Amino acid sequence: MDQSCFSIEMAVRDYECDMQGVVNNAVYQHYLEHARHEYLKSIGIDYAALTAQGINMFVTRVEIDYKLSLISGDRFVVELVPERVSPLRIGFRQQICRLPDRKTAIRALVTGTVLNAKGRPQLPKELDVLLQQT
Amino acid sequence: MDQSCFSIEMAVRDYECDMQGVVNNAVYQHYLEHARHEYLKSIGIDYAALTAQGINMFVTRVEIDYKLSLISGDRFVVELVPERVSPLRIGFRQQICRLPDRKTAIRALVTGTVLNAKGRPQLPKELDVLLQQT
Amino acid sequence: MDQSCFSIEMAVRDYECDMQGVVNNAVYQHYLEHARHEYLKSIGIDYAALTAQGINMFVTRVEIDYKLSLISGDRFVVELVPERVSPLRIGFRQQICRLPDRKTAIRALVTGTVLNAKGRPQLPKELDVLLQQT
Amino acid sequence: MDQSCFSIEMAVRDYECDMQGVVNNAVYQHYLEHARHEYLKSIGIDYAALTAQGINMFVTRVEIDYKLSLISGDRFVVELVPERVSPLRIGFRQQICRLPDRKTAIRALVTGTVLNAKGRPQLPKELDVLLQQT
Repeated sequence: MDQSCFSIEMAVRDYECDMQGVVNNAVYQHYLEHARHEYLKSIGIDYAALTAQGINMFVTRVEIDYKLSLISGDRFVVELVPERVSPLRIGFRQQICRLPDRKTAIRALVTGTVLNAKGRPQLPKELDVLLQQT
Repeated sequence: MDQSCFSIEMAVRDYECDMQGVVNNAVYQHYLEHARHEYLKSIGIDYAALTAQGINMFVTRVEIDYKLSLISGDRFVVELVPERVSPLRIGFRQQICRLPDRKTAIRALVTGTVLNAKGRPQLPKELDVLLQQT
Repeated sequence: MDQSCFSIEMAVRDYECDMQGVVNNAVYQHYLEHARHEYLKSIGIDYAALTAQGINMFVTRVEIDYKLSLISGDRFVVELVPERVSPLRIGFRQQICRLPDRKTAIRALVTGTVLNAKGRPQLPKELDVLLQQT
Repeated sequence: MDQSCFSIEMAVRDYECDMQGVVNNAVYQHYLEHARHEYLKSIGIDYAALTAQGINMFVTRVEIDYKLSLISGDRFVVELVPERVSPLRIGFRQQICRLPDRKTAIRALVTGTVLNAKGRPQLPKELDVLLQQT
């Protein structure tokens, strides 16, 4: 991913590993979600505050390619680049790279939208402005 | 999905819902995984027994379209049709339908492979035979 | 436990097992919570509906003795007997027994209270009546 | 807790919150487990490596007092003091304090033991030595 992307560093916790001794497939979605919410916070959008106001961000589609399994003790970085998919849809290109070798663990494209308190699609202003610039 | 598919009925548990009051996105992967493992068991393949023998089934790609959010109290059915993607790859077309109205909550395509104890791709015999018939 | 207790039957799902190949300790709290919510529903109290009204049931203390580890494929029953601990506290004596041998997997005592929409302790009427009878 | 205790700092992730908008009760057990494993690593004991050798650390009892609910965005510290409960049992006094106000979210006592590859109780040498000093 390009160098302008948002990224956070995390580490595998043992309870996230399943009987194969690797991080369970579903847990990567948690990592990806956490990175998206931290990204949103970094541009001034608080997911929990929006939810409390009745504004709900929804994921409409997820594609994940699993390349390499993370295991106990692994550190990794979750990277994210936002992109506009349509006037009311946002895409997040995300990847998780193991550290320190930076081998790709997963690549993902997560698409979402936002429903305002009346249940109508409406991107938060901060995100709308940001995506118009790109 | 056609009538020959495998299906199991489940119900939302409250701890699976997040602050939006709906089932968290990652939880659907748990539902899908559980249905795949029950399907495998139904054709004589025990995931845990394979894992204990060093034979690891891996998901290589997941695509999920989220159509409708399940909430507390919802019952639903997870359906599955297996298909051969390539000599060493299996695909599972899966969908989750809310009950009793059978509205589609998610549609998914999960692709996987199996590595034997030597780390080489090899489908379990039962699955290989089954997929040759279809 | 006595024969008048509430019980539900469940089964281990593979994603609930950790790298030791047994159900992760924290998952038993999910089983216990699910049984409590099903019990409440059986006496006319809907946890999600209460939450939506701003009435929050809170666990204040949990004690769990782990006796035997559940593994992939295990079926089990979660049993529950409610008891009044104080005017505003409810206790749930719970145990999880493996099936079909009924060996005890865990024994637990979960204590909770309920805060109404004004943040003041207040047991739901249905529970209050029930506990006065015992 | 005294100042010689082990501690790690963490933060709530949104997917850990349930429909009440607070961290789900079971998730605190994950936080506690993660802190114990990090503590063990700090004294030279690798949980995953032990597990791979057939040496299993087991929790035998958990007591948790819930004092204050953590919510989205909260940072917190998980603290731990080990103590010998009996020749073959270790206790971990743990607490989770919200940051920066250091209000106690939960207090816990987690007791465990270790079974060696032959299924017999045996504390790892590092832990045994450490607990003899206290």
